Amino acid sequence: MKKKNPIPARTIERMVLYKRILGDLQGKGVSMLFSHQLADLAHNTSTQVRRDLMEIGYSGSPRRGYNVAELISAISQILDGSRERIIALVGVGNLGRAILSYFTYKHPGLTIAAAFDTDERRINRVVSGCRCYHFDRFEELVREKQINMGIITVPALAAQSVADRMTAAGIRGILNFAPVPLAVPEGVFVDRIDIASALEKLAYFTGLD
Amino acid sequence: MKKKNPIPARTIERMVLYKRILGDLQGKGVSMLFSHQLADLAHNTSTQVRRDLMEIGYSGSPRRGYNVAELISAISQILDGSRERIIALVGVGNLGRAILSYFTYKHPGLTIAAAFDTDERRINRVVSGCRCYHFDRFEELVREKQINMGIITVPALAAQSVADRMTAAGIRGILNFAPVPLAVPEGVFVDRIDIASALEKLAYFTGLD
Repeated sequence: MKKKNPIPARTIERMVLYKRILGDLQGKGVSMLFSHQLADLAHNTSTQVRRDLMEIGYSGSPRRGYNVAELISAISQILDGSRERIIALVGVGNLGRAILSYFTYKHPGLTIAAAFDTDERRINRVVSGCRCYHFDRFEELVREKQINMGIITVPALAAQSVADRMTAAGIRGILNFAPVPLAVPEGVFVDRIDIASALEKLAYFTGLD
Repeated sequence: MKKKNPIPARTIERMVLYKRILGDLQGKGVSMLFSHQLADLAHNTSTQVRRDLMEIGYSGSPRRGYNVAELISAISQILDGSRERIIALVGVGNLGRAILSYFTYKHPGLTIAAAFDTDERRINRVVSGCRCYHFDRFEELVREKQINMGIITVPALAAQSVADRMTAAGIRGILNFAPVPLAVPEGVFVDRIDIASALEKLAYFTGLD
């Protein structure tokens, strides 16, 4: 994976953040901004911002700054690539359902094609437009629907075995919401959404008075 | 806020990440590690790790590295401070319920003391041990229960007005799960959990083949 990926993970993380900030600004009617303004919003330096954007081949005019719409599209081109991402979500509890309903506002290039659970009451139900299958049928549906990404929203104790089934079925990218680390084979990318860590960080800043 | 906070936000973010990584390692029985190992796991450099830990007054032995348990407790001391954080959650839909149930495994120093919604079917119900009140009673309960942090799990369109009510009631730290940016007065700290951004980052790395 490393050979084919010239952009480091940290840079991609910043790109995703820049894109979100720029999207927010565009929603407020901002059409141009300077590197130092983007840097401030990203808690970053303008040198870092300029270096990051040079890396994707984008440079602003020193006098007028960056064009927000152009910059969003330049970053999107890097992030989106060419391949459609087809996602399986495993665990149709509250969090799983929240994510499925969130995806009703479609995201370009990202589709949740199937949801899975082991609770019979959830099987064959359609949640926010997505059908829920028994987890026994996981491998079959990954093949049939050409699924290449996974979201794990099962309890902590079940998360590793779900990850094992995912990677064995050929899935190379996993977003993990369970509060445990996952062991995966090399070449599989895992990211974790960690609500407890976010609260700890928030508590730190809230406590300063 | 800035004067009383000698540790920059970025450093705190890394501390939270180190603590999570160290907790994971401890769970696997690891008791010692070197700065370069921690740096690898945090996608960071060992220089940065050493600089961060010096900032909180912790230094390892060059020969044996860092003691994992000691380091966790040193970081916790910085993060936890002395004040108990009492949290209000607004929006008892799927995501709100997922977070409440997640908190059943108590976190030291963090308590969700009350949940709020406007849907009558949710009022006065107890969800994972937390009572749900009508949002009309928000200010009253913030005072009564000495709430100082907020979690927003309402739909995008309602998020800003919830944030306004929170800050007017004296809340200084907000964790926002709604997919919109929030405008808050100076001195209020907002963090956003952005599921779409996490998926975009994941999609980038998954697409590299």
